[in-house]
Amino acid sequence: MDLGMAAKRYETLADDIAASIARGTLKPGDRLPSVRQARASRNVSAATVFEAYYLLESRGLIQSRPRSGYYVAAPPTKARAAVPTAPSQPDGQAREVKITDLIFDMLQAATRREVVPLGSAFPSPLFFPLPRLGRALAASATHLDPWSTVEHLTPGSLELRRQIAQRYLLDGVRADVDEIVVTNGAMEALNLCLAATCKPGSAVVVESPCFYACLQALERQGLRAIEVATDPRTGVDLEALDTILVRDRPGAVWVMTNFQNPLGGSMPAEKKQALVDLVHRHRVPLIEDDVYHELYFDPQRPASTKAFDRDGWVLHCSSFSKTLAPGYRIGWANAGRFAREVAQQKLGASLATSIPVQLALASYLERGSYDRHLRGLRARLRTQRDVYAAFIGDVFPAGTRVAHPDGGYFLWVELPEGCDALALAQRALAEGISVSPGPIFSPAGAFRNCVRINFGHPLDARVEAALTRVGEMAGG
Amino acid sequence: MDLGMAAKRYETLADDIAASIARGTLKPGDRLPSVRQARASRNVSAATVFEAYYLLESRGLIQSRPRSGYYVAAPPTKARAAVPTAPSQPDGQAREVKITDLIFDMLQAATRREVVPLGSAFPSPLFFPLPRLGRALAASATHLDPWSTVEHLTPGSLELRRQIAQRYLLDGVRADVDEIVVTNGAMEALNLCLAATCKPGSAVVVESPCFYACLQALERQGLRAIEVATDPRTGVDLEALDTILVRDRPGAVWVMTNFQNPLGGSMPAEKKQALVDLVHRHRVPLIEDDVYHELYFDPQRPASTKAFDRDGWVLHCSSFSKTLAPGYRIGWANAGRFAREVAQQKLGASLATSIPVQLALASYLERGSYDRHLRGLRARLRTQRDVYAAFIGDVFPAGTRVAHPDGGYFLWVELPEGCDALALAQRALAEGISVSPGPIFSPAGAFRNCVRINFGHPLDARVEAALTRVGEMAGG
Repeated sequence: MDLGMAAKRYETLADDIAASIARGTLKPGDRLPSVRQARASRNVSAATVFEAYYLLESRGLIQSRPRSGYYVAAPPTKARAAVPTAPSQPDGQAREVKITDLIFDMLQAATRREVVPLGSAFPSPLFFPLPRLGRALAASATHLDPWSTVEHLTPGSLELRRQIAQRYLLDGVRADVDEIVVTNGAMEALNLCLAATCKPGSAVVVESPCFYACLQALERQGLRAIEVATDPRTGVDLEALDTILVRDRPGAVWVMTNFQNPLGGSMPAEKKQALVDLVHRHRVPLIEDDVYHELYFDPQRPASTKAFDRDGWVLHCSSFSKTLAPGYRIGWANAGRFAREVAQQKLGASLATSIPVQLALASYLERGSYDRHLRGLRARLRTQRDVYAAFIGDVFPAGTRVAHPDGGYFLWVELPEGCDALALAQRALAEGISVSPGPIFSPAGAFRNCVRINFGHPLDARVEAALTRVGEMAGG
Repeated sequence: MDLGMAAKRYETLADDIAASIARGTLKPGDRLPSVRQARASRNVSAATVFEAYYLLESRGLIQSRPRSGYYVAAPPTKARAAVPTAPSQPDGQAREVKITDLIFDMLQAATRREVVPLGSAFPSPLFFPLPRLGRALAASATHLDPWSTVEHLTPGSLELRRQIAQRYLLDGVRADVDEIVVTNGAMEALNLCLAATCKPGSAVVVESPCFYACLQALERQGLRAIEVATDPRTGVDLEALDTILVRDRPGAVWVMTNFQNPLGGSMPAEKKQALVDLVHRHRVPLIEDDVYHELYFDPQRPASTKAFDRDGWVLHCSSFSKTLAPGYRIGWANAGRFAREVAQQKLGASLATSIPVQLALASYLERGSYDRHLRGLRARLRTQRDVYAAFIGDVFPAGTRVAHPDGGYFLWVELPEGCDALALAQRALAEGISVSPGPIFSPAGAFRNCVRINFGHPLDARVEAALTRVGEMAGG
């Protein structure tokens, strides 16, 4: 559905109904008007009513009963789950990474649409303005200047790099378009940044736990990983990092300071500044994977490490894959002093990024509906965070701890000690449910009793049944 | 221009005129009808006449004279240039590769449209059906199934892999769609194949000379290169290769057996078979960069190494970038026994290839106009080969040798001994002309008196002036 186009009317209707529930005008168990009634009384289309009810349902405010209609839901039960608070305590050893074989089949299976995507890395594709993007792509493709197929090779379309630079202004960052290299998604950007800064055999500091794709990138480039102690809410321990920088002289530090995957935590702005100061002092490149930056839930936009980067030691990577255009594969590296090396790596790795797709995104961004789409997406994900956390609190075993992220779409779930998340993930997959087990987020295979749950899909009956089943497996 | 749609009318007109020239009805120096006259007498549009004359001009049959019109050209003078015949004689040492810094600025400068693209890696973007592809992309993008953005992740769209497998049938190859991984162009495919088969420090056998991007890929992956003696017409010396395989036990062999870049030579089918037998015997992966396969000039389609590959040791890479869709960045690896490793590398390197673009190509190929487009493209390039070779024979210094490729769009030009191609390339670029100097095709920096000339752009007055100027520089 195209949130950019149709958002206003159904959101207004949903907000009206939500307000009635909040005021008590509509009480738990009350039946909502039928779609036909609401359509007539509000003078809106059936689709608008349906969308509004669907949104309220995803927020947990109403429930559908088969062949009966929509009813105001009972307020969520108080979650039994607490929030994890203890920082991780990795041993600080540099390790060769061997993760790909473990996770490859699991990840591949999770891309099938019949699998319940609790382990998915993506939010629901229904949440993105794909038809509007499609029209932008149609226009860019049918009016493609043939010479642009040569001129917009690496570092990429100047128009798109300008649009990206404009978004950096929102974070108070004056990005230099000459330091931006357009890539095939953030994943390629991160690989290129690693290759531009490290030699095979180098050590790279990673969070504990860290995103498994970071480990895949290290493995394929023959790099070793050093896990650094990480607070689930505020990110890496800077003292521990300082010790490692002195002791191991790593080739780079890889972090996600906003809505870290999988923990969901974010560094406060002052800590970001201290982190950037630290890597400046040690002259170590800081590679930031910042793909969830735009998915914040608080009114205040989070800071960017790039805002504190005066000497170009931060290689800031992001994409549109999680926020706007899944499957289009457009990302970038804003690579500071390493921009030339990253562009060289890009030429050698894949020459260029698809040019009609770059131009389509530039044109979409220029029209200015990105922010409206993001507002809708953030509100939806924020609601789903609460609904999922409450539901998991209800159906997972006692002693479970669930993170409370302020952005993104992942819940880090600590199951009671003794639970084997790898075995759980295998059993769940056999029943058509994917979950991401903790050990894939650690080169040492730690976090054996943790799972990452994706809350980026509406909590419908299928997802409820899947979560309930995973809770049963975890409990038994 | 859209060859698929508009080809017929102007090609018919051009063929009629060409026949009149061949019969002697029109003689050298005769003036052709003006565009207005031809339009009226043929009942076609001015654009059609223009296109027909343009095509005849690119074939060297007619010439425009400023403010006067088009005239039948004199038959090409006999080229003074001979064809290079001696195989290269590299020293067989394994070398670290350091080429990127040398060529990066040169390659970047050559992408500017105001530079005469004699050194370009691409044929003219005007030769491709970009409007028709654009319509296919418009359709795939506006009707994108949101779930396809997850399901068509690596290894890629099943529809596109099926279309690719069908083209393999033309070469007598039964390709397994499960062994095909869709990539961001052939460049990514080749990188992934290297990473799937070699470890940092491994040696890779390369042709002498070989495509510079092969050397870039080796450099970025920390691989060493061993050059093997290569015949300019028939490819690598299999005895020399056998010796290297025994002595150095390399991680892989990288070849282009069809219209090798830069030499233009092709292995005869029996030699391809012997090559595949050889790597089977030594159990060494053969990585084939086969991006020019479809651009053959003879009536007979060339063989594919993959046709002789019974045990999956051939990793066959190609793309649509040189034949159909420049700038779209769609390629693939048909990776035999290494398919799983290549897919894992793809996931780790860039996760996936742009999904609307994959679907657009699948839909274009399904409609069956690819072969018609290719027939037109081959005829055009074949003509340009002759026109360029004759022109170079006229304006380059005595003693120049020019290859005679049976496909592709590169002429390998050996200048007289003592010419410094690197200096020549720098001087030419300062005057707005790109050429590719021989040393960038060799890890040892050999071929100092050679240049590669792209004949994939119409030989118009601007290109004539550029070739003339390069010939002067080479002579003085």
